[in-house]
Amino acid sequence: MYKVKVYITLRESVLDPQGSAVQSSLHALTYNEVQEVRIGKYMELTLAKNEKDVELRVKEMCEKLLANTVIEDYRYEIEEVVPS
Amino acid sequence: MYKVKVYITLRESVLDPQGSAVQSSLHALTYNEVQEVRIGKYMELTLAKNEKDVELRVKEMCEKLLANTVIEDYRYEIEEVVPS
Repeated sequence: MYKVKVYITLRESVLDPQGSAVQSSLHALTYNEVQEVRIGKYMELTLAKNEKDVELRVKEMCEKLLANTVIEDYRYEIEEVVPS
Repeated sequence: MYKVKVYITLRESVLDPQGSAVQSSLHALTYNEVQEVRIGKYMELTLAKNEKDVELRVKEMCEKLLANTVIEDYRYEIEEVVPS
C-alpha cells in the first residue's frame, strides 16, 4: 500500500485572488506581518500496491486530472506503508 | 522573514465528497489502485519578522481564520528565511 501526498500550487506568475482575500482578512484581524498568502490544494491518496510503476502512475494522475498544468505546479511524496 | 506552510485537512470522521468525486474520476481514467482520496488546503504565507512570537501568531491565524476547527485539522511548518 502507498500513501501519496500531493501539493498543488498556483504558478508564481499567476494571480491568486483567494490568497489576497485571505491576506486582507488576516490584516483586518491585526496580523499585519503577513506579506503574502498563496493558497493551493493538498491531497492524500491511498493506493493499493500493484505491478505498475507507482511514481509514473502518480505523475500521470497529476498531469491528467489532479492539477491544471496550465496554471498550476504539482509535487508529490510517495511513502510505502506496510498494512498493520 | 518567515515562510510558513499550512496544511488543512478534513478530520477523519468527516465525509469528503470532493475526495470521493476525484476518486471516481481517477477510476474512470483506469487508475483503479486508488483506494481513497482526501482533499485539503495548502497555504504558503510570507511573514515579516517582528517582536511577536511567530509560532503563537500562526496558531492564532489558523484557529481564527485559516481552518474551520469544527471539521478541519491543521498543522504548519515555520521556516526562517534570510532575505537575499
